[in-house]
Parts: sequence; structure tokens; C-alpha cells
Amino acid sequence: MNKEEIINKLLAGEMKLYQIDKFCENATEALDIRREFIEKYSNCELNQIANYTLDMEMAMAKNIENPIGTIQVPIGVAGPLKVNGEYADDEFFIPLATSEGALLASINRGASTISAAGGANARVIGDKMTRAPALKCDSIVDAVKIKKWFEDNFDELKSIAESTTSHGKLVKIDPILIVGNTVYPRFVYSTGDSMGMNMVTIATEKVLEKLFEETGVHALALSGNVCVDKKPAAINIIEGRGKTVVADVLIPEEIVKSKLKTTAKAIEEVNTAKNLIGSAAAGSMAFNAHFANIVGAFFLATGQDAAHVVEGSLGITTAENRDGDLYFSVSLPDLPIATVGGGTRLETAQEGLSIIGCTGSGKVNKFAEILVSSVLAGELSLIGALAAGHLAKAHQELGR
Amino acid sequence: MNKEEIINKLLAGEMKLYQIDKFCENATEALDIRREFIEKYSNCELNQIANYTLDMEMAMAKNIENPIGTIQVPIGVAGPLKVNGEYADDEFFIPLATSEGALLASINRGASTISAAGGANARVIGDKMTRAPALKCDSIVDAVKIKKWFEDNFDELKSIAESTTSHGKLVKIDPILIVGNTVYPRFVYSTGDSMGMNMVTIATEKVLEKLFEETGVHALALSGNVCVDKKPAAINIIEGRGKTVVADVLIPEEIVKSKLKTTAKAIEEVNTAKNLIGSAAAGSMAFNAHFANIVGAFFLATGQDAAHVVEGSLGITTAENRDGDLYFSVSLPDLPIATVGGGTRLETAQEGLSIIGCTGSGKVNKFAEILVSSVLAGELSLIGALAAGHLAKAHQELGR
Amino acid sequence: MNKEEIINKLLAGEMKLYQIDKFCENATEALDIRREFIEKYSNCELNQIANYTLDMEMAMAKNIENPIGTIQVPIGVAGPLKVNGEYADDEFFIPLATSEGALLASINRGASTISAAGGANARVIGDKMTRAPALKCDSIVDAVKIKKWFEDNFDELKSIAESTTSHGKLVKIDPILIVGNTVYPRFVYSTGDSMGMNMVTIATEKVLEKLFEETGVHALALSGNVCVDKKPAAINIIEGRGKTVVADVLIPEEIVKSKLKTTAKAIEEVNTAKNLIGSAAAGSMAFNAHFANIVGAFFLATGQDAAHVVEGSLGITTAENRDGDLYFSVSLPDLPIATVGGGTRLETAQEGLSIIGCTGSGKVNKFAEILVSSVLAGELSLIGALAAGHLAKAHQELGR
Amino acid sequence: MNKEEIINKLLAGEMKLYQIDKFCENATEALDIRREFIEKYSNCELNQIANYTLDMEMAMAKNIENPIGTIQVPIGVAGPLKVNGEYADDEFFIPLATSEGALLASINRGASTISAAGGANARVIGDKMTRAPALKCDSIVDAVKIKKWFEDNFDELKSIAESTTSHGKLVKIDPILIVGNTVYPRFVYSTGDSMGMNMVTIATEKVLEKLFEETGVHALALSGNVCVDKKPAAINIIEGRGKTVVADVLIPEEIVKSKLKTTAKAIEEVNTAKNLIGSAAAGSMAFNAHFANIVGAFFLATGQDAAHVVEGSLGITTAENRDGDLYFSVSLPDLPIATVGGGTRLETAQEGLSIIGCTGSGKVNKFAEILVSSVLAGELSLIGALAAGHLAKAHQELGR
Repeated sequence: MNKEEIINKLLAGEMKLYQIDKFCENATEALDIRREFIEKYSNCELNQIANYTLDMEMAMAKNIENPIGTIQVPIGVAGPLKVNGEYADDEFFIPLATSEGALLASINRGASTISAAGGANARVIGDKMTRAPALKCDSIVDAVKIKKWFEDNFDELKSIAESTTSHGKLVKIDPILIVGNTVYPRFVYSTGDSMGMNMVTIATEKVLEKLFEETGVHALALSGNVCVDKKPAAINIIEGRGKTVVADVLIPEEIVKSKLKTTAKAIEEVNTAKNLIGSAAAGSMAFNAHFANIVGAFFLATGQDAAHVVEGSLGITTAENRDGDLYFSVSLPDLPIATVGGGTRLETAQEGLSIIGCTGSGKVNKFAEILVSSVLAGELSLIGALAAGHLAKAHQELGR
Repeated sequence: MNKEEIINKLLAGEMKLYQIDKFCENATEALDIRREFIEKYSNCELNQIANYTLDMEMAMAKNIENPIGTIQVPIGVAGPLKVNGEYADDEFFIPLATSEGALLASINRGASTISAAGGANARVIGDKMTRAPALKCDSIVDAVKIKKWFEDNFDELKSIAESTTSHGKLVKIDPILIVGNTVYPRFVYSTGDSMGMNMVTIATEKVLEKLFEETGVHALALSGNVCVDKKPAAINIIEGRGKTVVADVLIPEEIVKSKLKTTAKAIEEVNTAKNLIGSAAAGSMAFNAHFANIVGAFFLATGQDAAHVVEGSLGITTAENRDGDLYFSVSLPDLPIATVGGGTRLETAQEGLSIIGCTGSGKVNKFAEILVSSVLAGELSLIGALAAGHLAKAHQELGR
Repeated sequence: MNKEEIINKLLAGEMKLYQIDKFCENATEALDIRREFIEKYSNCELNQIANYTLDMEMAMAKNIENPIGTIQVPIGVAGPLKVNGEYADDEFFIPLATSEGALLASINRGASTISAAGGANARVIGDKMTRAPALKCDSIVDAVKIKKWFEDNFDELKSIAESTTSHGKLVKIDPILIVGNTVYPRFVYSTGDSMGMNMVTIATEKVLEKLFEETGVHALALSGNVCVDKKPAAINIIEGRGKTVVADVLIPEEIVKSKLKTTAKAIEEVNTAKNLIGSAAAGSMAFNAHFANIVGAFFLATGQDAAHVVEGSLGITTAENRDGDLYFSVSLPDLPIATVGGGTRLETAQEGLSIIGCTGSGKVNKFAEILVSSVLAGELSLIGALAAGHLAKAHQELGR
Repeated sequence: MNKEEIINKLLAGEMKLYQIDKFCENATEALDIRREFIEKYSNCELNQIANYTLDMEMAMAKNIENPIGTIQVPIGVAGPLKVNGEYADDEFFIPLATSEGALLASINRGASTISAAGGANARVIGDKMTRAPALKCDSIVDAVKIKKWFEDNFDELKSIAESTTSHGKLVKIDPILIVGNTVYPRFVYSTGDSMGMNMVTIATEKVLEKLFEETGVHALALSGNVCVDKKPAAINIIEGRGKTVVADVLIPEEIVKSKLKTTAKAIEEVNTAKNLIGSAAAGSMAFNAHFANIVGAFFLATGQDAAHVVEGSLGITTAENRDGDLYFSVSLPDLPIATVGGGTRLETAQEGLSIIGCTGSGKVNKFAEILVSSVLAGELSLIGALAAGHLAKAHQELGR
């Protein structure tokens, strides 16, 4: 069949989109036909989407089905941002892809303030990826036995899990929650430079085969939402998921004044009223101003999974007035990230990663430290701006 | 200065990134210099990022600062998906931009199942954008007075707010939370086809000027985290934010069997153990499997704000076995979306919107109905797959 | 049958406990037989439980079934506590029933500090009791119609609801949540001096009869857990339930020092680290130190429902260092209380209420203001003690 | 001074309540004077409160300050309830103190249903008491070191902690949360038959002395709200606190019908719509109908701390229709209880405990199993009643 015939069959509903490929010589030909079909079906023009430079043959193998091209998102840089980490110890320009005007400028101002104060301290304090199936038993009596089975056989199960992967390590199976007759064992792995969801799913499945052989119990669902992937959840905040990272900075009074046009006292006050009390009053799970903005732009620029912004939005910002100087910190308990695999292999993502020297393996902790320092910059800038607006009004009030 | 001189000054730290523009003839020249500087600074090559087709002059005016090019993300289509909405009543191909392999294929399977069953019912049941400043008083006595002031003067405040916008309407100021001496009035607006964050911020600021004039109280922070923007929060789930949307489908037993290779009973069982009980046990705020995946890919394809995926991840999936037939629903209380403004003006986003006939004004409810139907498809497919895996194991067990 | 015969039949399992009454002349005789039976069955002596003075005939009619006597809990008083409320404006001794040593002494210290500073400001800022049934429809399409039915017919439904009660008023039906095909309309009433759960249940049932007549939809459950009674829930924090109350005090530096042996700065620091950040980090819904202790002891002393301590534990404590003086506040959004009905009619509860002049109708707001001021005293004392311990250590550190 | 003189001084504000004791021969004389003073001050009569039989000398030493007598709460029994536990394996009459009419009758109906079905399975699956101080460091860099210090020195710290107690064991210090510069190490102990809050506080203080000696870091607050005592918190749900207990029962179809007047299908439907989906929609942390009612009445009857009802209200109820039979379970992750110490030593509490054979040491697990089985009975009865009401309406609908 030629292109027109295929498109006509698609329009007539006689062919499915995924069936195009077998009539085409290569992936890009199929891609073009799909796009042309959509243009006809929806009566639209997709010229910009057609203008891609990614290797779509590779993308189809690993990243997407039924592609018709690429979307583009502007990428810019903020910085330099000085980072004093264990893995990242340098000044970096931060790659950020976004369409929200003023975001980069704001992060940039925070970066400038932090760098002037000597840089951001950054540490990775946790590193894990998790998978928690739901196992349904007859009764609580059996559920308790299954929990004990996992505890008693941990060493063997660890060997089984690790036989499926060269990088992943099964650290623990904990907690093992029981709700009535259903057991949710949370498998906790370290996964190196890859984000690890696929790795831990495969390893966990292997363990569940052993469970089935020995006990006859099988997974009702391979993921029982105790993992918890791509959803805001207290268990991730408390136990950590992905990388758990913290950053802080101590900013002398004169830099607060010159760079942020406000005071440590005003910033502490705003942070308490907004990020702590306001979040509490609203039943929010996130005690920060806009982690999601910085994490989202950083993720897009470096090929991370956009859906993981949900987890990256969690965490707490603190501010302390230390006799005029400002102590400021951010803590992100749940940051699933990678420097290899998934979307990081896309060509523009590779370039984004290269801007901060984080391509390839052995780089994920460095990546984490730069990211958390960027979040620190973004938070500082926004809270500083709110406080400066407040100060301006306060002065206006005095003048009445 | 010529290019080399600028880059040298940048490398020497004698010039800031944002200062480049004044030495350049146009935005793209500055953009190229910035990118070349980064290549030198980070010792990397950014050829793919350089290969953009977006109008970056426009992007710099509205969407980004310090740009160096664009990133690309593959976009594909799933469908056709039949939607029976009030605004969207047709078969659509769904634009999805992602780098997560298998996601489109999965949504596609769900779309095929739903369409075979007659399509997804979809409704928009709420529509609002919110801004809640933090107002600090001397004491609870004053805080109570300020609350009353808002209540007593609502009609006038509504006029003031609406004087700043042609599309926005101030619907109510409610709830007005008081925590000690701080008041958090939640301004609730309808904003038409734009997402509306900027609109409601400007309108609210205007009202706060009036507050200041009459009472001397001013905002400690223009946003007090009771809004709640880009963070997971109960107030958004309960009151709604952005569009509040629901979708459902009733799938005959034979279609569940032929398309999903499982049964309504198994799907209900998995949904209860995972999305309801598992989420509850993990302290999750989201009672679904992967709303964030579908919302994220849809958002990227249509120019929505990636950070709003956080809010879009919230919501509940339900499944009911109706004598063998499957009733399946998704409810998303908090979906900030737009068909005009922000990232939707980027050229590839416009094309993404055009695939579903949602470019321009008057389209946001249609957009919402197609999106929620796509989420229904994605959830159905994943829960169906988990249930099918469970059924396979269950048969294996019987064969022992 | 005589006593021995009845007891023997009970021991032989030939009679049920509730069947005793028909063989007895009065409630107390049946009560004695039940207790003797239990003594025999469990081989124990219940002499203290037997030593009650309450009118158990009345208690059986309204408060309990199968009684065997009463338990006793020590009641003491703390105070005087000066309260500057709209309804309570005096110095009160606070009745508190507890078995936790040191609790009264602690509240007493707080009361003394507050009174020395001029008293606690207290306000009731919300007053409502709620009931939210679960209504199951065929589909979201029908669910949306039912929501609209409630909105369109509110005035008539209000008349119907209020026809069942002399004191209750139906204020609104809002929010009306929809999750898939299930609708949860939250009926919001004012209920005067009674706690009101029974009142609002009866009134809501009457409205649901009308719903059934007109639409054929009936309640799957009269309470759908969106009420939310006796459970910690964000909707109660945000919308309020029972009485919503706040209290605060401004304490001069010298009183902080003389009474609490600490400073405003230390108290603010402890409050932020513990009540705000600690609670956030632990995924707590309550941002205070021990509201539940004070609410619990006050409830027991005045005949409130012990299970409502759950709701009374919610809320936020704030502390501000105002140039050495201490501003301190508590906010309790969800306090279901009564001065008439339920357990308040028990004789010792009546006496507990009389200590603060709150027996009978027209007193519930006064009661609320005294209670919230007591909570302020208890919080202040505990946070003050923690801060004093911290200061002591800090001095020890300096001396090293 | 004689009585009149003391009372006059109190009325004149020249003496404090706690100063009475030194002028009296014994505790009861002081108690009487205090009560008479209150009668005069508040112009009320406290005859019933005066009518106590508890040993108030002892109560003053351990349970209360400034006592004036006791309050009384009716206590009754429900049952017999058959419990199939590891520690409790018998039929029990359940002691319940309450003033909420119909509560005992409802639990009684549940107990009767469960016993007819062969009894409730009950298990204790976790046992711990926790204390988590807030430790403030200069920066995240130091915070990370302090975390490591706890990890590196665990064995020694365990010895130190356990040197302060004969029954308590330090099981782990985990998690150790870091938020900015503040560290929250969660000390996890087993505490035998006592509830253990005092024990773990003392043991933890001892460890903190060592911390101070070695690092100079001291507790900002001995409790940093990561414990989390008497507040609803996700960390307690996930990690467990107090006893973590589960119970279930499988009820044949005919017993569901004869005892509960409904069907397994209707009960499952109500449980899903109310306890699972309704709770999720309302942002509730508790996925049950009324755990707090049963826990509250059981606690009062047996001398537990009323404020701990907050924690006891947490947990999940599940219901499954198994081809007409009903599987029903309750899971309570967070039940701080004791059979020795605290309020359990009050004479009526001892008698309440003796009804279920749980006085003294070695009984707390038995106590836990009976309690969780009682909660199962209460939940079953209420959900059953809601379902029966629904069924009645459904039949009415058919008859239209």
C-alpha cells in the first residue's frame, strides 16, 4: 500500500494506527504517514511538530509509540550557582525548560544571592527506589504468616531479586503493611544512576514467583500503591523515595538587603505564615512555595519523567532570622531522578545533562545536589520577593 | 562588542547572562551567543538544542528568559477515543508527549476499549481559579474584624476585582480561614479559557489595595499557600481548583474479556486493593493508579504548565462489577488548564491543541472533557493489565 | 424468676443480657443482676462500679444499654483563668477530669501566666453541624443531575429539614462532592446549644425522602464519611465543624521570664520546630502539642462525647517573638460541643458545667470560649516547659 | 487556719489552690475545702462530684492535681464476644463506659453476629512506643553528621537507654528525619504492659545527655512531634505506634441475613462508598465508620488515656462479598494501651479490666485482641445497619 491508501484506510477506520509500521520501510516513514493522517482527520497543520531532529527510530524503540514528531519547549540557563556538595562542588549554569515567563529570571536572582553568600550546601541523605505489590490472603491469620515469610527469608529473597539486575540492590522489605487480609510489602532498592522503576519491578516480580511457589499466594497487583509512584504520599515523605536531598545557605544581612531588598526577619515571617501555617491550614502535603516549578523545568531540560514532578513537589522550606543574617533551607524527601535510561537518552536531554556535567553513569548524586541547590535558589527568590512586597507596603503604612 | 568579546567577558565573570541582549541586534543572536558561551563554559555541544523552529523572539517576551534553544520531546497520538461530553462529542485522537515507553500503547488500549463500549461520558462540574493572600493582624480580635470586612463588602470588592480583567469574575471569597492573627481569604474566580493565575493575582492585588486603604492591613504575602498552586492540597480536592472533571464508562462483560483479557470482578478487586486501600495505607492524597502519567503527557503535548501536573495527579478511580459488566470512573477535582495564554501559544503546543480542535477561546471545557476521558482510558488500561496478570496467576494456581 | 435463676440462665447461655429487664421491677434491680452475673462469669468483684449515685433509670433511657454501674474519673480544677470573650468575660476555674498526673498542674501554670498578662482573647468564628449521605447513581451524568437538584431546590429542602426541629437551621448544602457515580452532599446546620448529630441526621433523612420521591435516588448510606464525624479529616479543618474557635494572648517579656522561665524567642523557636515543622515532617494533621489532653479532660468533666476528642485534637498553635514579648495563639476548627442533651445531662456533668456557669441553653458559645482559652493555657505551658528545658541546656552548653 | 479562713483567702485571691494542702491533715480534707471553695466561687452545688469512692490520696500522688472529687460515667457490657486470638481465646463480655445511647446495643449486635459466625480472629502485629526529639544544628552539614552519629553508636545508645528501665527495650532509632538544620530521630521502644510514654521519655533523655556530651548538640524540644503523641499522623499509620492490631471474621450468608438483615453485597457496597471513597473525598485520615466510639468507650471503662482515642480512631475497615458470605476486617495501626500504670490503677478501671481478665502484667496483648475484636463488632453493626436501611429503601423503590 502506498501512503494515500494507508491514510484512506485509517480515515475509513479500516486500519489501526499501530498497523502502519508494517507497510513502511522505516520508522520515520510511518511517522510521517501517521502525522499526515492526523492532519487530515483533524483538519489541521502540524508543520512544527514535523520539524524534529531526534532519532525517532530509537525513540520508538524505547520512549514512545505512534509518534508523529516532537514538541519543543524553550530551554534557558540560570546562574552561575555555586554548589558546595559532596559530589557537585563548583559553579553551575542550570538548564531549565519552561514556558512560564519570569521563572528563569527568578531562579537566576536566587542563584546570584546564594553564590554571593558563598554557595549552597547540598547533601544526598537517602537513595532508594520502591515497589510494593498487593498480596491478598484468605484472612488476617494468613496475612500475618506471609509477612513473617518475607522477614524470615530476606537473605534468600535478596539474592533472587539481585539476580535480575547488575546495578540494583535489595536493601530491605520494610514496612510490610497489613490491612485486613491484604499484605503490602514495600521492596526498597538502591538503583544507581538509573531511576529504577523498571529494574525494581522486574526484581520484585522474581521474588513474587518464589512466594507463589512456596506459599501459593500471588500478587493481586504488582503495584499496590504503597510504592508510591507519581502520587503525593506521606510514606514517601517519611521513608523517602528516589533521592532524599537537602540544601541550605547562610546569607549575611547586607546581601539579603542588597540582593533581595528585604530582611531576614521579613523572610522568616513570610515563610512561617505561608509555607508552614498556610500549608497546614489548607491541608497541603507540601510546605514550600513552588518546588514544582523548579523541579519541573529542571526535569524537562534533562529528560526526567514529567509525571515525577508530583513527587518532586513535596518537601519543606525553612527560614531563620539569625540576628539579621538569613538561614534558609529546602528539604526534598522524594526525588526520582536518573542520568541514564528513560528520557535521558533523548538527544536534547543529553545536551541538557551535559550543561551540568551529568551525562552517563556515576553522576546521579551530583545531579541531585545541583537540582536541590536550584530549588533552594527558586524558593529563596520567590519568598524574598513576597517579603520585599510586604516590606514596601509596611513602609507605605508608616507613611500614612 | 562582538561575539567573542561577549563570550570572553561572560567566561571571565565580567558580564551577566541577561546583559547580552543589549549588545545584540535581536533575540536570536543573543540566544546563540548564550548557547555558545555555555558550550565553552561547560565544555559541551548543544547542537540539538540549537535546532529549534519556535519563534524565540516571542518566547522571550512571554515564556522564558536567557533562552539557548529548545528541547524536544516525542509526541504521538492514541485513539480514536469516543467522548460523550457536553462540549466534546466526537471521536478524538489524543496528543501525548512523553519519553516513557509503553504509555501511549497503554492509553491506546484503554481508548479502544472505551470506544468499543460506546465512549466515555465526561462532564465539567467545577471551574475556578483561586488566590489566597496571607494577611497578618495584631490579634484574633482584629483578624475576626478583617474576615467580617470581606464578607460585608463583597459586592464592592467584586466590582474592584473585575475592573482589572475582561474575562475574570470574582465568584466568592470563601473560605476565609483564620489561624491565630493571620487571615487567609480564598478569592475564587472564573477565568474562561485562560488558566488564570496571573489574572487572579492582579485582581486580588487590587482588592488588597482597597483593604489597605480602609483598614491599614496589608498582605504579608500575596499568596499564603491556601490557594494552593502547584502543591497537593486537600482544599483543592474538596473545593476544587481549575476545572473539576469526571468521566465514566459502562463496559459490557464481553468487551472487558476481549479487550482487557480479564473480568469486571478482578478489576474491581484490584482497584479496591490498590487505588483505595493501598493509597489509604500509604497516606497518599491520590487514589488512582497513574493520573499523572496521562495528565503529564497531555499537558506537554498542549502547552500546559508541567508544574500543574502535581494538581492533576489528584483524584479517585472507582470500579464496580455490575453482574459481569464493568462500571469504571475517574474524578479529577483539580485540573488547571488553558487553551489560550502561557505555554499554549508556543507553535508546537498550538498544533497539539489543533489535533483535538481546541485552539483559541471557547474551547477549554471541550479540552477538559477530552483530557478526563483520556485519563479514564489510561487508568482503565493499567488496572486492566494488573487484573489480567492477577488472573493469569490465579489460573496457574488452580493448575498446581 | 428470681435473681439466682436469672443469673444461672445467663451463665448457661439461655438468656441474653438485655432480656433481664422484663423480669425485674426496675432498672436498678436489672442493673444489679447484670453486674452480679458478670462477677460470676468473669470471676471478679465490681464493688466500686456498684457504688454509683447517678440516676441510672434515666441513663438507661438516654445514655447506655446493659449498664452495671459507673466508672469514676478524678475531677479537679485549674485556674483562675481570665477570659476576654464575647460570651465569657470573667475569671473561671476550669473543670478537668483526667488520670494523667501533672496535666492539671501544667494547665494551671498556663492559666496563671495568661491571667497575669490580662487574660485570653477568645472568639467563636464558626458554628455548624454536618451530615453527608452517600447517594449512588447510575453514572456521572445522573450524579451531575442530582447535584443540580439539590442546588435548584435548596429553599424547599430547607423548609423540609427545618420542619423536623425547633432549634436546627439548614444553612447550606455545600460542598456537594461527586466521585464517579456517587454524590456526597454535605448538609450544614446550625444547632444551637446541642451538639446536634441526632438533630441533623433526622432533618437530613427527611430531605432524602423528598429526594427519593422526586428522583428515585436513595441514600446508599445516611452518612458517607464526608460529614466527617469522629475522624480526623481535612474537610472539617477547612470548612469547620462544631464550633470553630480561636484564642490568643500577648504576654509581656517579664511575665514570660518570671512565670515560664524562658523567652519569647525560645518559645517561638520550639513552636516552629515542633508544632509546625515536626508535624509537617511526620504527616500529621494536627499542628499543636497536646490539644487532645486539654480537650479530653474538659470533655470528660462536662459530659461531652469522648470520641469527639478526635476532632478536638485538630488545629494549629502559633508563637511570635514580638521584641521580647510573646504573642501566642491556638486555633481549633472542629469542636463538637453541647451544653444540653447527650452526656451533659448526667448529674456529675451538670455539676462540671455549673463550675463555669454553662448549664442549660444559651451557654454553648460561652462554653466554647472557656474551652479554647483552657487549650491556650495548656499549650502555652507545655511549649514553655520545653523551651525552658532547652534554655537550661543551652546555658549548660555555654558553661562547658 | 480553719476551713472558712482558707476558703475566704481563696475567694479573696490571697491563696492559690495548690497551697491548701499544707494547711490540711490529709488529701481528702484539702479536696473537700477546694470543692467547697469552688461551690462558693461559682455559686453551684457539687454534691454528686463529692460522692466518690476512689482512693483520692493515691490519685493525687499519681493521677491528678487539685482534685475536688470524681465524675461518673455509666458502664455497661456487650457480649458475649468470641475472640480467636493468640492471647485472648475465649468468649468475653466487653466493658464499655459511655453516655451515647444505642452504642452498646449496636456493639452487642455486632458481637452476637461475630460469635454466631465462630468468632473474631485477632492478632497483634506491632508493638512499640516512640519519642522523637527535635535537635537543632547549625546547618544541614551538621545535621547529616548527627544522623550518622546515631546510626554509628546505636549499640551503645541502646545500653544507655535501657539502663533507665527494667521493661523497656530500644528497638531502633528510625527514621531519622532531617528538615533543614533540624534532626528528628524517632526512638522506637517496646514497653511491655505499660503504655510507656514516661518510660521512653526518660530513656530518650538519657541518650540525649550522651549526645550533648559528645557533640554539644542538645534537644530544642524533647518531643518534636514526630513521635506523634495524641495527634493523627501518617507516620503512626505507616510505622505503627502503641499496638498495631488487626481482626477479621468470615460470616456465612445466612447469618448476615438473619442477624444484620442485609447482604454481603450491600455491606461491601456501603463500605466502599463510605469508608473508602467517602473518606478519601473528604481528606480524612481514618477509613472507618466509628472506631473512635468503640475505642473511646473501651478506654474509659478500663482506665486508658482519653486523649489517646485520637490515635485509636485511625485505621481501615474492609468488606468483601465472597459469593454471598461476608468477609469483614478492621486494622488499627496506632493503639497506645496499658494494663498497668497511669489511669489503669484507678479502682473502677481495675474492675473494668477484671471483667476481661486483663488486670496486671502480662495481659496487654490479650487486652489488645479483645479491644480490636470489639471494634470489629462495632463497625460491623453500624455498616450493617446502614446497608439494611439502604436495602429497605431499595425494596421500596422496586415497589413504586
